Amino acid sequence: MDKLLVSLAVAVMIVTSAFAQDPYAGLREKWLQTAEDAKPELVYKDIAPVAVVQAVQDGSAFQGWKYVESGSPEELYGKNFKEVESVTLDFGKHSVGYFSFHTKTLSRCIDAPVRFKFTFGEVPAELNTPFDPWNKERLGRAWMQDETVTLTRLDEWVTIPRRVAFRYVKIEMMGWPGGGYDFAIDGLSFRSQTTAREVKTRLSPDCPERIRRIHDVGIETLRECMQTVYEDGPKRDQRLWIGDLYLEALANSVSFRNFDLTKRCLYLFAALSREDGVLFAPVIEDPVPHPQYGTYIPSYAMLWNVTLADYLSDTGDKETAEDLFPVTKVQIEDGLSFLGDDNLFDVNKKPGWFFIDHRGGLDVSASMQGVLIFALKRTYDLACSLGKEKEVSQYPALIKQLTQAARKKLYDRKSGLVLSGPSSQVSIMSQAWMIIAGVLSPKEGAKAIETALQTEECVMPGTPYATHYLLEAMLRCGLGSKARAYMEEYWGGMVDKGADTFWEAYDPKDDFYSPYGFHPLNSACHAWSCTPVYFIHKYPEVFQD
Amino acid sequence: MDKLLVSLAVAVMIVTSAFAQDPYAGLREKWLQTAEDAKPELVYKDIAPVAVVQAVQDGSAFQGWKYVESGSPEELYGKNFKEVESVTLDFGKHSVGYFSFHTKTLSRCIDAPVRFKFTFGEVPAELNTPFDPWNKERLGRAWMQDETVTLTRLDEWVTIPRRVAFRYVKIEMMGWPGGGYDFAIDGLSFRSQTTAREVKTRLSPDCPERIRRIHDVGIETLRECMQTVYEDGPKRDQRLWIGDLYLEALANSVSFRNFDLTKRCLYLFAALSREDGVLFAPVIEDPVPHPQYGTYIPSYAMLWNVTLADYLSDTGDKETAEDLFPVTKVQIEDGLSFLGDDNLFDVNKKPGWFFIDHRGGLDVSASMQGVLIFALKRTYDLACSLGKEKEVSQYPALIKQLTQAARKKLYDRKSGLVLSGPSSQVSIMSQAWMIIAGVLSPKEGAKAIETALQTEECVMPGTPYATHYLLEAMLRCGLGSKARAYMEEYWGGMVDKGADTFWEAYDPKDDFYSPYGFHPLNSACHAWSCTPVYFIHKYPEVFQD
Repeated sequence: MDKLLVSLAVAVMIVTSAFAQDPYAGLREKWLQTAEDAKPELVYKDIAPVAVVQAVQDGSAFQGWKYVESGSPEELYGKNFKEVESVTLDFGKHSVGYFSFHTKTLSRCIDAPVRFKFTFGEVPAELNTPFDPWNKERLGRAWMQDETVTLTRLDEWVTIPRRVAFRYVKIEMMGWPGGGYDFAIDGLSFRSQTTAREVKTRLSPDCPERIRRIHDVGIETLRECMQTVYEDGPKRDQRLWIGDLYLEALANSVSFRNFDLTKRCLYLFAALSREDGVLFAPVIEDPVPHPQYGTYIPSYAMLWNVTLADYLSDTGDKETAEDLFPVTKVQIEDGLSFLGDDNLFDVNKKPGWFFIDHRGGLDVSASMQGVLIFALKRTYDLACSLGKEKEVSQYPALIKQLTQAARKKLYDRKSGLVLSGPSSQVSIMSQAWMIIAGVLSPKEGAKAIETALQTEECVMPGTPYATHYLLEAMLRCGLGSKARAYMEEYWGGMVDKGADTFWEAYDPKDDFYSPYGFHPLNSACHAWSCTPVYFIHKYPEVFQD
Repeated sequence: MDKLLVSLAVAVMIVTSAFAQDPYAGLREKWLQTAEDAKPELVYKDIAPVAVVQAVQDGSAFQGWKYVESGSPEELYGKNFKEVESVTLDFGKHSVGYFSFHTKTLSRCIDAPVRFKFTFGEVPAELNTPFDPWNKERLGRAWMQDETVTLTRLDEWVTIPRRVAFRYVKIEMMGWPGGGYDFAIDGLSFRSQTTAREVKTRLSPDCPERIRRIHDVGIETLRECMQTVYEDGPKRDQRLWIGDLYLEALANSVSFRNFDLTKRCLYLFAALSREDGVLFAPVIEDPVPHPQYGTYIPSYAMLWNVTLADYLSDTGDKETAEDLFPVTKVQIEDGLSFLGDDNLFDVNKKPGWFFIDHRGGLDVSASMQGVLIFALKRTYDLACSLGKEKEVSQYPALIKQLTQAARKKLYDRKSGLVLSGPSSQVSIMSQAWMIIAGVLSPKEGAKAIETALQTEECVMPGTPYATHYLLEAMLRCGLGSKARAYMEEYWGGMVDKGADTFWEAYDPKDDFYSPYGFHPLNSACHAWSCTPVYFIHKYPEVFQD
């Protein structure tokens, strides 16, 4: 197909979608119901704190703070809380769910209301960095998990209504009864919840301890994010994003193998898509499932197709794949609508959030080209598996055209690097996506990555999300030992710094790196960081030997 | 209340009192059940705000602040609350109960939790005086009615779990969703509650407008305090004190005539008394009825007897009076145990809180003598009504001895004043209680009051509670027009300053007077201030002409 034909085909698709004829008319309600039917049951577990801890400022600790054990919960339970005033407890592990506490009158009775502030933190610095005054330009203040409770009676269990994600809780007395009216906090309990259930795979007995540890932290990360949807982070944003879904589904397929959750999420996006059938990037469950209106990420929409293709490979569930197949075609049409006459993805053609990484200054043009080609290929695979290749018969030619255009305009044979945008930017993401898309051969890819990593001005990944694609690319072009070393350094670095779940944002050189201008806003248990689980199981010869 | 809980509470007391020869052995559980059976049903009414208001600093306003209307709730309901940020609403009248609000998504959806602080105030200054930093020597910080709520979803009604007493609510946004994610607070509702029901008496058509207004504010005060017990103040302390019970019962007897509530309260004190049968001064209902252990006010214990005697006069309910009669004897015995060899009440003989007024520096010796004689007289009246005068045959002689001792040692014939304590202090309370006790003749009493009021160093009443006894004394010694003038000036002064319920503490010369060192801690709707209702109905010839 020549350039003109591609353009014509795309034009037709754009016109079609402009008229807002809902491509899924009559299907959305059924799809929502299918999503509800596939919702896994939450499994609850009551846990108790393991220690009273003391914050210690320590330049060598992650973000400057660590906790050291200073007592037992049982000791606390016997103390007059009016003398304690403030205390922090460690629950031993990251958990998601609902916090309860019990109070006990120690002498006389309660003669005035008692007020507590409970601050829940995933990592030590979160509880030792003042939140206020709050810069209004930041994300919402209420993401911080500090909850105030006033009690007009004691001697009973009280549950804080907000779901929290935490390992440590700081309790501060903000209101107290009079002299001689003493009380204790004599019980703390946390009802943790997940839909993850048991891990169905095992590591080789030869798997080195460091890799095993990284794997286990990844498992905990995934477990915490597996709620009634795949959440991005159970602290923040507590919602289903396509980008997180894609990576969580990869890790789930080699661990919990809870494919109902993947199915539910695929259906939710389809049912709640825009009126022209293009997917919204996040979906929110409460009070009724609804999209985060207006949040449209073309790269994510295309990765939904890949997730569906993977789901079919993993489960053989053709019914679901056939049911949702029409949705994949709309996402591809939408992706193609960004192409310029040169068959290159043009981020200036239409508005959209072309999310590839949080790293500031990243030029995403080359990466978006890679995502589109990758999605075309995996969608064509899906069509073939369903015997529907005739419906997408133009895809192979498109893949060829887009690949040729990328090689011609984005790949610099001389340096062996993919260059992106008007400034010919060198970034890891551009190399990675061109490799994943198959635009570069494995040999070219290996050189591109190695060269980029040695290029001083190369834009490095800023998140584990982006780093995932770097590892994926390395493994696709034979750089297994490099991938392993990178994982051990990057994810292993988080483990070395005390992570018991993997973080949303991590820059090995800057513990305070935050996409939100305030490191306590970062989520310290973030789905998109769990993919070592996937790599370790998928490439045992690379990681488990 | 759950029967099991009643049994449990009683079991604890029985065990405690087992060694102390409980004078009410075998009766407490039955009494608690009788109290439960007499509990009146709460009547609910849903009310809405009447105006959006703006705080204005004004030296001539009570405590320096007033509100002026600046808009309608309906206007607010249509606004983007992210632009409003903070707003105060007037619900038009003082109310007690539960506050609810509704939120509405205006654009897109909610992408971050929303947090509000709601501060409830009875009077304008309460919402315009910073609470923090809080002096720890004050009463508990949590008496202040500021409640923080974090919402992770919108578009529904939310009820704040704490019961509040307020007329004005300030709403402040403390956490917000991102740009373009807009919402409104589009509904506010308050479920007010009382057990008061309708007023069963009427004022004369000739009753002057000022007296009528004072009466009506007193009625509102009493209505708000009539919950499932006679509370002292529905904001603070939200509990049943004998001193408040006595005055509320007086006002109730000429207005709502809800005698079941009086009966319930009388039984609660008896059932929950100390192991030796002496009454605790306050009782707390939740989670199960229990006394405020250790709070022992001899003056209050004796006034319980007077309340029971009044209850019998008002209702003719001999069953209750007979059932509780043994309790009166214990209180008299306890009162008598404070007597010295000179037959005078000695506050240094045993520890106790000899509460007569909050006014600092008041010497209470003479007042306590008066309370004891008054209680002896009214308890003897009660015994006579029940045909039990033989059981208390020693009371008339005691009354005579105590009266003689008082006249001899406390009454200064020369000045015509009652003098109290080692410093021979002149106070209104000493005169008032000697008159109520009948130690002074009406003529002597009239002179004592008039002289005291003209004495520069005379200790004046600091609360409406104490002022009640001054008016009672005035009316008992023929100073009706003085009593009326005093009421018009004192309670009328509160009305002039904007009171729609009467305040706990009021000094006409000092708007900021507080027994707690912080005027926003004062209760602005306080039971013991409602007695103009009693006087106006009891002495129509004095007040209603």
